[in-house]
Amino acid sequence: MCQLFAMNSSRPVTVNAALGAFTDRGGRTGDHVDGWGIAFHEGRRSRVFLDDRRACDSALAAFLGLYPIQATTVIAHVRKATHGQPDLVNCHPFQREWRGRLWSFSHNGKLVDYQPVLSGDYLPVGETDSERAFCWLMEQLRQRLPGRGSPRWQEVAPVLAELATAIGQHGEFNFTLTDGEALYALGATRLAWTQQPAPLHVLPRSGEGDRPGPGRPPRGPQRIVQVATEPLSHGDRWQVFTPGELKVFTRGEAIWSRQLDLPRPQPHPAALAA
Amino acid sequence: MCQLFAMNSSRPVTVNAALGAFTDRGGRTGDHVDGWGIAFHEGRRSRVFLDDRRACDSALAAFLGLYPIQATTVIAHVRKATHGQPDLVNCHPFQREWRGRLWSFSHNGKLVDYQPVLSGDYLPVGETDSERAFCWLMEQLRQRLPGRGSPRWQEVAPVLAELATAIGQHGEFNFTLTDGEALYALGATRLAWTQQPAPLHVLPRSGEGDRPGPGRPPRGPQRIVQVATEPLSHGDRWQVFTPGELKVFTRGEAIWSRQLDLPRPQPHPAALAA
Repeated sequence: MCQLFAMNSSRPVTVNAALGAFTDRGGRTGDHVDGWGIAFHEGRRSRVFLDDRRACDSALAAFLGLYPIQATTVIAHVRKATHGQPDLVNCHPFQREWRGRLWSFSHNGKLVDYQPVLSGDYLPVGETDSERAFCWLMEQLRQRLPGRGSPRWQEVAPVLAELATAIGQHGEFNFTLTDGEALYALGATRLAWTQQPAPLHVLPRSGEGDRPGPGRPPRGPQRIVQVATEPLSHGDRWQVFTPGELKVFTRGEAIWSRQLDLPRPQPHPAALAA
Repeated sequence: MCQLFAMNSSRPVTVNAALGAFTDRGGRTGDHVDGWGIAFHEGRRSRVFLDDRRACDSALAAFLGLYPIQATTVIAHVRKATHGQPDLVNCHPFQREWRGRLWSFSHNGKLVDYQPVLSGDYLPVGETDSERAFCWLMEQLRQRLPGRGSPRWQEVAPVLAELATAIGQHGEFNFTLTDGEALYALGATRLAWTQQPAPLHVLPRSGEGDRPGPGRPPRGPQRIVQVATEPLSHGDRWQVFTPGELKVFTRGEAIWSRQLDLPRPQPHPAALAA
């Protein structure tokens, strides 16, 4: 069973401690032994780190636990391969560019008989159903929302709801998606979230390498949303997504929600893990 | 003045020592103080690491100097901003997917009045002339070489020669490009390369995390090509690209070369740095 983690905040923060708790699930407290990945976003800026080793043994994961990467949105994933070989090429998050933004995507669940016809706008590099679904999503978004410049989440969310409903007919489609502006999260079967004003385990932006600039003054209360397959911390008040709930988060706030018409999860084992 | 470094080898190797010498140019022995980046490729697998700090001060660069990432092709870049703000979003290598492969690109030089009309297939995320040139290259390659599956270098190289000649009319266009299968390098004004059978400072693939698989048995002599703006090591026999020479390297061998019809470099300072 794969695990998703995501963060969205009103100002850049580091997620070192939360990330440490999460990557521990990659082998130490969980059985997610087939690699992991994390995408950091701050506006248009993005960096993706991938590793095909167990997160709990990964020197890169340990390093990222110490190295203060600032971000307003983070998407992370630890993987237990059920589809595709355990290989770097199959590690989430996957990333593609659309309308001059970098879009990162992670999926939890298994899709059955999911073989969409792809135009070629975006093609999978690896073998996972997840990357195939992501490529189809991006292709459809591109076709339905043509134009230049970063699309607004108000345009993206309703189209994404429609597309995710289509994919969700093929199996479990819990996902997180971001372009650095908004965090989109579908709790098809299993996802939870929490919001904190200023939690202790998420550090405020340090001065190191900081270039606040006129565009992002430190005004208003710091708001942080975390999303995870399973709640990460006991102290925070986690809320479970209603099955089929698609939510949008920006600046550390839940700002949009829609209930998708998805089939009830099947108790068959083949439709559970991933 | 930016610096390019690239490596292509017949079997996966680590480039830690060469990388250390190269990143020292990011502030310690050079004046390339505006960030750096490196793309590792091994077949379809790819990882890009970017940092907007000086390479010589970067904890991430130091970490990568120790962390044994295996690759058959590497593209690295240290940056002195002359176009676009010093910002992560402007750090090379840039990466996009085409025909199910991840393509990484780094540029050295400055393009003047370079504003191609882009269809939208690939759009820049940052502000550099380099990323704009890369997006145009990928768009043109996609339009001229339609199809699925990884394109052969024999198809790509002649088209790339034509496209690079067009871009090269706008200024200095030294670049490195790879899809993990072939390394394409244009020495428009300044680039050097060397080949070694088995250099001491490039370590053989270790057993750690190694999954040789049936596709890559350790057969034949190990061949390694290095490409750099300036020769990195005194012991190796470096050869200078003829100005305007586009070369293709696969499996650690120079296998194709074409002389492009590019304007003579201008001695004007504005056309030199980047």
